[in-house]
Amino acid sequence: MVKDLKEISMNENEFLNKEITVQGWIRNHRKQKEFGFIDFNDGTQFNNLQIVYEKDLENFDEIQKFGIGSAIEVTGILTSSPNANQSSELKAKKVILLGSCPEDYPIQPKRHTREFLREQAYLRPRTNLFGAVFRVRSIAAMAIHEYFQSNNYVYVHTPLITTTDCEGSDQMFKITTLDLNNLPMKDKKVDMTKDLFGKQAYVTGTGQLHGEAFAMAYKKIYTFGPTFRTENSNTKTHANEFWMIEPEIAFCDLNKLMDIEEEMLKYVIKRVLDKCQNEIQFFNQFVEKGLKEKLEKVVSSKFVRISHHDVVDILKKANINWEFEPDYESDIAKEHEKYITEYFNGPVFITNWPKDIKAWYMKLNDDNKTVAAVDLEVPGAGELMGGSQREENYDKLMKRIDEMHIDKDTVQWFCNLRRYGGCYHSGFGMGFERLIMYLTGIENIRDAIPFPRTPKSCEY
Amino acid sequence: MVKDLKEISMNENEFLNKEITVQGWIRNHRKQKEFGFIDFNDGTQFNNLQIVYEKDLENFDEIQKFGIGSAIEVTGILTSSPNANQSSELKAKKVILLGSCPEDYPIQPKRHTREFLREQAYLRPRTNLFGAVFRVRSIAAMAIHEYFQSNNYVYVHTPLITTTDCEGSDQMFKITTLDLNNLPMKDKKVDMTKDLFGKQAYVTGTGQLHGEAFAMAYKKIYTFGPTFRTENSNTKTHANEFWMIEPEIAFCDLNKLMDIEEEMLKYVIKRVLDKCQNEIQFFNQFVEKGLKEKLEKVVSSKFVRISHHDVVDILKKANINWEFEPDYESDIAKEHEKYITEYFNGPVFITNWPKDIKAWYMKLNDDNKTVAAVDLEVPGAGELMGGSQREENYDKLMKRIDEMHIDKDTVQWFCNLRRYGGCYHSGFGMGFERLIMYLTGIENIRDAIPFPRTPKSCEY
Repeated sequence: MVKDLKEISMNENEFLNKEITVQGWIRNHRKQKEFGFIDFNDGTQFNNLQIVYEKDLENFDEIQKFGIGSAIEVTGILTSSPNANQSSELKAKKVILLGSCPEDYPIQPKRHTREFLREQAYLRPRTNLFGAVFRVRSIAAMAIHEYFQSNNYVYVHTPLITTTDCEGSDQMFKITTLDLNNLPMKDKKVDMTKDLFGKQAYVTGTGQLHGEAFAMAYKKIYTFGPTFRTENSNTKTHANEFWMIEPEIAFCDLNKLMDIEEEMLKYVIKRVLDKCQNEIQFFNQFVEKGLKEKLEKVVSSKFVRISHHDVVDILKKANINWEFEPDYESDIAKEHEKYITEYFNGPVFITNWPKDIKAWYMKLNDDNKTVAAVDLEVPGAGELMGGSQREENYDKLMKRIDEMHIDKDTVQWFCNLRRYGGCYHSGFGMGFERLIMYLTGIENIRDAIPFPRTPKSCEY
Repeated sequence: MVKDLKEISMNENEFLNKEITVQGWIRNHRKQKEFGFIDFNDGTQFNNLQIVYEKDLENFDEIQKFGIGSAIEVTGILTSSPNANQSSELKAKKVILLGSCPEDYPIQPKRHTREFLREQAYLRPRTNLFGAVFRVRSIAAMAIHEYFQSNNYVYVHTPLITTTDCEGSDQMFKITTLDLNNLPMKDKKVDMTKDLFGKQAYVTGTGQLHGEAFAMAYKKIYTFGPTFRTENSNTKTHANEFWMIEPEIAFCDLNKLMDIEEEMLKYVIKRVLDKCQNEIQFFNQFVEKGLKEKLEKVVSSKFVRISHHDVVDILKKANINWEFEPDYESDIAKEHEKYITEYFNGPVFITNWPKDIKAWYMKLNDDNKTVAAVDLEVPGAGELMGGSQREENYDKLMKRIDEMHIDKDTVQWFCNLRRYGGCYHSGFGMGFERLIMYLTGIENIRDAIPFPRTPKSCEY
């Protein structure tokens, strides 16, 4: 019976001194005249299993030729290792080649640059670094589902294809089934009635609007799916495709929203610390010194809550020669984010932002100048979540839609939610790659998503 | 402290005869001179809570005007109901209006047709039927994650935007940031180098190819995300956007793949039967008579495994006047699917299909005529999963790519997986909406997904 490495290491005592069979890949291979060592991994855990084979094996000479990257099946006895750093090793009785790997295999047991590995996106999960990043990604995704489901949230699959003007259609990809080299024309314009949906459709940048409709039925919902932006910017934090979590909660004000954000983040961090100990240890050592301590501290801390106005006060008093002068009416810059999270030495909720720099659906505060929005800033990663109480007043919302030149026809249904038993409600969005960067110390979004899509780059 | 109905019904004894506060919506309202009954629901569970209010309340006259659909907050004492069908009711001390709802509210406590409700997609989750469907959807999604994560699979977010020719680019939506009414031209063709990615990109119809790359690193992976098809067909089972689960497993042959499919399906059904008892009861009564028994039977049955050839034998012997004559070289028709699942009275795995009707990446059997593919057919819903062992032989795969006119350049990396420690491996795809239809008895895919996208229909 073939076993996963993960199963074996979870129940090592059960398997010790027993015969087991494993299937996986050669990560490294050190050959001696009379014996050999194989660093073996089947991908079910971070740590390799050391395989020892000796001259008495029938196909000893053949085994010695097995290249790095090859797929093999090994049967042997699991024994305590003489090496104190390893818990056990497999003394091989039989080693079979299942798939060979040539010498020009790009992934060798040496240091590769991340730029090189990005070009080998389909092979990079086989390395220690990316193997760890994408396992943390999987565990963190599950932790998010666990948190919301155990708190009675309904998971909603909001549509990706949409004709609703959520965030401004110029920021959305158009989709079409028409032949671009042979477009049907009518009155010198493309005749979109000939397209599959009979009009111009887009892939969306948010599930929030549709999420709100479901929050008005289920009280507490969340989305978790891919999201698209057409931004033509090549930075470490922007990608044109990324995953987002967007919870939306009826009968929830800004304070309660912050409670939820804080509780969720702590839950996810705890799960990752618990389930990815070897991975976090690795990141802590090779990617971001102090990562583990940073994450542990967040779990036990109480997040600061401070208004945008008071943040600007602090920035102005800081006696620093800012590149961007802090201003009560303006967004805060990267340098400000950095200063303020270091000032409080932990995550900071910044609330009540100037209305003109925030989205049209956010609730206008009584001062008529600010909206009930909140951004969560974390040390090292900047803005991790952005949320707000939503404008639940139909007339105020319609006024904002006019002011911001939103296409009213496409969002009328969304506004109707305010007429049909609408209530105060709030929601937030969290970019999943941002979270992965924060959890792993990885600095570039291209290394936090399996196959990154950025301007001029859509390989694989 | 406001409580969810779900929390209350899970711990009813704890709350009985205590004062509680709830926030939610009026589903129905029956008024008498001296008192009134409100069917109240906050969306956290299927069953309503009955609220009783009496004349002694300060705002009694006002409460009597609260319309169906209104959002309210109620504080009262939870008491045992005199009505044997209800476990408890809330005797109101205070009823506050949080959001009104006008008389022209489309969702009234009467029977609405599904066609009408489809047009009100943003309101339909407030009905019993759709409230139940989309809760089952959420619970089933979580069950899928639970199954794979507890078996050490890694959840992989494969890209939606792609330039890889996975299933034939004519079946994929093109995406672009270019202005269709002002396209950049070069040599009388659209100059796609001016587009965001510098070439034509698509939204994909499958994550399988990218999933295989990750299975060669983690051994066991699964995807769960949205998928797109341009099919211009208006049927009960086709949508242009739907969600798909695509597991891929290294060192796995067709038999083991069937074991996994069977185990996963049984796990999901068990979880839904356990966690959605009221919803299943409702479907069983109003949507598909016998649904509950059908699902319970599947959990305890052993699925039949039979080759395509032997299925055709059975069909030929059936002495039925088929619309489509059964044939050893051809696909089986809907009428055949129906017959064969009724013949075996349960789910049926059909294996080893004629190669010419299946995909290019499937493993060619030794007979050179069939491929190691398997479809799972279930009574009432037809094909629920489709999978195969993948062709792991590089040369055979390249030959198929030539024969099927696949764009070789875009899939070279995928073929390389066979050169770099490739091994025998298998995977399957399950359309999530198909599963929801099977679990709920709902017959139209438009009613199994929150906001359906079908030809000429992309509302909201």
